[in-house]
Amino acid sequence: MNHEPPRAGDGSREPNPHIPHIVIVGGGFGGLWATRALASAGVRITLIDRRNHHLFQPLLYQVATAGLSAPDIAAPLRHILRSQRNVEVRLGEVTGLDPAAREVRLGDGERIGYDYLLLASGASHAYFGHDDWADDAPGLKNLDDALHIRRRLLLAFERAEAADDEAERAAWLSFAVVGGGPTGVELAGTLAEIARKTLRREFRRIDPAQAKVRLIEAGPRVLSSFPEELSEKARAQLQKLGVEVVTGTPVSAIDERGYTLGEAFVPARTVVWAAGVAASKLGALLDAPRDRAGRIQVQPDLSVPGHPRIFVAGDLASVQQDGKPVPGVAPAAKQMGAHVARAIRARLAGQSAPAFRYKDYGNLATIGRMAAVVDVHGFKLSGVLAWWFWLAAHVFFLIGFRNRVIVLVNWAWAYWSYQRHARIILGDDESPP
Amino acid sequence: MNHEPPRAGDGSREPNPHIPHIVIVGGGFGGLWATRALASAGVRITLIDRRNHHLFQPLLYQVATAGLSAPDIAAPLRHILRSQRNVEVRLGEVTGLDPAAREVRLGDGERIGYDYLLLASGASHAYFGHDDWADDAPGLKNLDDALHIRRRLLLAFERAEAADDEAERAAWLSFAVVGGGPTGVELAGTLAEIARKTLRREFRRIDPAQAKVRLIEAGPRVLSSFPEELSEKARAQLQKLGVEVVTGTPVSAIDERGYTLGEAFVPARTVVWAAGVAASKLGALLDAPRDRAGRIQVQPDLSVPGHPRIFVAGDLASVQQDGKPVPGVAPAAKQMGAHVARAIRARLAGQSAPAFRYKDYGNLATIGRMAAVVDVHGFKLSGVLAWWFWLAAHVFFLIGFRNRVIVLVNWAWAYWSYQRHARIILGDDESPP
Repeated sequence: MNHEPPRAGDGSREPNPHIPHIVIVGGGFGGLWATRALASAGVRITLIDRRNHHLFQPLLYQVATAGLSAPDIAAPLRHILRSQRNVEVRLGEVTGLDPAAREVRLGDGERIGYDYLLLASGASHAYFGHDDWADDAPGLKNLDDALHIRRRLLLAFERAEAADDEAERAAWLSFAVVGGGPTGVELAGTLAEIARKTLRREFRRIDPAQAKVRLIEAGPRVLSSFPEELSEKARAQLQKLGVEVVTGTPVSAIDERGYTLGEAFVPARTVVWAAGVAASKLGALLDAPRDRAGRIQVQPDLSVPGHPRIFVAGDLASVQQDGKPVPGVAPAAKQMGAHVARAIRARLAGQSAPAFRYKDYGNLATIGRMAAVVDVHGFKLSGVLAWWFWLAAHVFFLIGFRNRVIVLVNWAWAYWSYQRHARIILGDDESPP
Repeated sequence: MNHEPPRAGDGSREPNPHIPHIVIVGGGFGGLWATRALASAGVRITLIDRRNHHLFQPLLYQVATAGLSAPDIAAPLRHILRSQRNVEVRLGEVTGLDPAAREVRLGDGERIGYDYLLLASGASHAYFGHDDWADDAPGLKNLDDALHIRRRLLLAFERAEAADDEAERAAWLSFAVVGGGPTGVELAGTLAEIARKTLRREFRRIDPAQAKVRLIEAGPRVLSSFPEELSEKARAQLQKLGVEVVTGTPVSAIDERGYTLGEAFVPARTVVWAAGVAASKLGALLDAPRDRAGRIQVQPDLSVPGHPRIFVAGDLASVQQDGKPVPGVAPAAKQMGAHVARAIRARLAGQSAPAFRYKDYGNLATIGRMAAVVDVHGFKLSGVLAWWFWLAAHVFFLIGFRNRVIVLVNWAWAYWSYQRHARIILGDDESPP
């Protein structure tokens, strides 16, 4: 809390030419951690984001499944950084890069010059060349996606209740989550829990517990980034929650009536996409080497080959370490952001920037109520203990004291009552989802 | 909490012809209180609403001003009524009434027969024949409205920060609330508080405290439903919060550049409409006498003249008592709903329904942090005490224990920190608000 009188903005638009100007694109984990690590550096920072908030992405699936409300896992960037006086937060979309002139171009035409630039605009989901699936299989990357998926999930049960014939009712009660990574596992597990526990006794014509929740992974196992034994544990826990886990079979088609698994068409009115990842389009604005997902293949110091004043952090960066790619997870993004801050300080001091090393603190994934898997340097946990471990870690890392309190209260409530407080359908409820 | 195993829906669509069927349209205070009051009656109830949730409308302005998130003030109707086994909740929009056949028609074409019908679909805002103002002066009736207004308010400060010239900046920092009733007073007071307290130190080029917040009332005073001395108190408290209160002058035009007050054009990019009220369109589907706002002029027992099996409750009902209209407030709607339940029980018992009498427990309005006015049978309060009274009353009446806890935590947090946790801009942030 702070009780100083409000300060007037000085209204000046003239940058001080003697102070190096750092432009950071993206207020996610990479961009925000870099910004904070530059608080004491003698630089001006402009943080540009298309949205006004930092999003705690690891809990986004909880918004999509009505367990948390949007503001529970997001905080305005301006608020987070209000006391860091060397930062200016700018709501806007970067539409162009001009490395020669050292400028970024915003959607509104404004040009912002930089001495050093950090691209941390992250990634979105990809449909592997099947963009026509997007309408019928929405993905989950931001709060708007989450609220859209929440609406689809909740409306499906309403449509089933109102359905006139058995086939239609069954199609509305048939759910599929495509992609067996952490997000897919979290969505499927929670969805099964909603159908079996949260909604029980609330409907009169359907039994929500009869809903079919299917998790589809084209590869051989779910949570492929985990040791095989934990993938097996995860599968078992999912099945216990009522999820049908299908592996080794790709989805070959999706439309508003359902999806095709291998050769077989499955009627389903609700399909959620948790599969592919594609790096932010910003990467394509640079003449730099990129991997198949569009990530920029950076130098050891996280700068862009041929563009020493441009750095990349987070999901937009493709970093190899000991022959393995650094994973696209929050801790990696934070570490890259902090590293870029160090690299810029070194450059400003006339030294060469150190090489980035990712420190892997382990891997967590939650599956549903009291079910999770944890792998910390070979120390493996699953089930209840893993779940408490996961909960503590995630609530601890939530930005802002208030959010932690609220999220804990919500969780405690949801835990004891099986209820999910955000089961509110927004938008025109009469239109098809 | 309830730990019975889930019950299967019986899937049957055949109503039992021996049990009277009550159809209730609208899950607001009127419809929900009627539904609950019929729990022990030997009737089947179908509750139809276009939305899946009951909304605690008295706190809607808090969502519009980012103090609470949408799920804090709403609960799914199915959940509220899950244990009342004689109720079926139906998400749908009533598009037709056929009193002769005793049927309501839904948007999806389904017809639902009734023995008694309660219309409690409430009211919306009206532009007095200026519907073209709707885009530039959004009104506040449901959660979608609230989230839209929240977005507009928050984006205005962002646009001001990014503005290039003084005039544009000033226009983005110029806010007007049209309508000096409780909602207008609440919105204006809270908006001034946001500009002066919540956002301080978060911007670098503007001083949010310089924002002009104007409350415009065409009539002679704000809160005209209160005693004159409390209107004066409210005006003083608003001015103390930094609101410019303009009375006795109508707004004659509104467009995207600003509004015209009397003869003078005032540049303003953000105008919120808190003025007119129009009853739900359902009223027009009946051949019944209606007042200027479209409310149905009901019989003393709240039935519709010429339609003894149709009742009306809440904002859709026009009721005169002792020469004065019963106000369109939550307590009145609850009392009407409960009365209609009594009336239906009487009719089913072959007796005639009693006449409705509104019991006025007093009138509350909040103005901002620690400022409110209370009038309970001539016992008048204003300022801090009135605010605590208001807070206690509203949190107490919030549906659902959980909501009360969360709302209190949010309020305590907002109170001590001046922060508003829901300052999240949803939707495409690059598009104009």
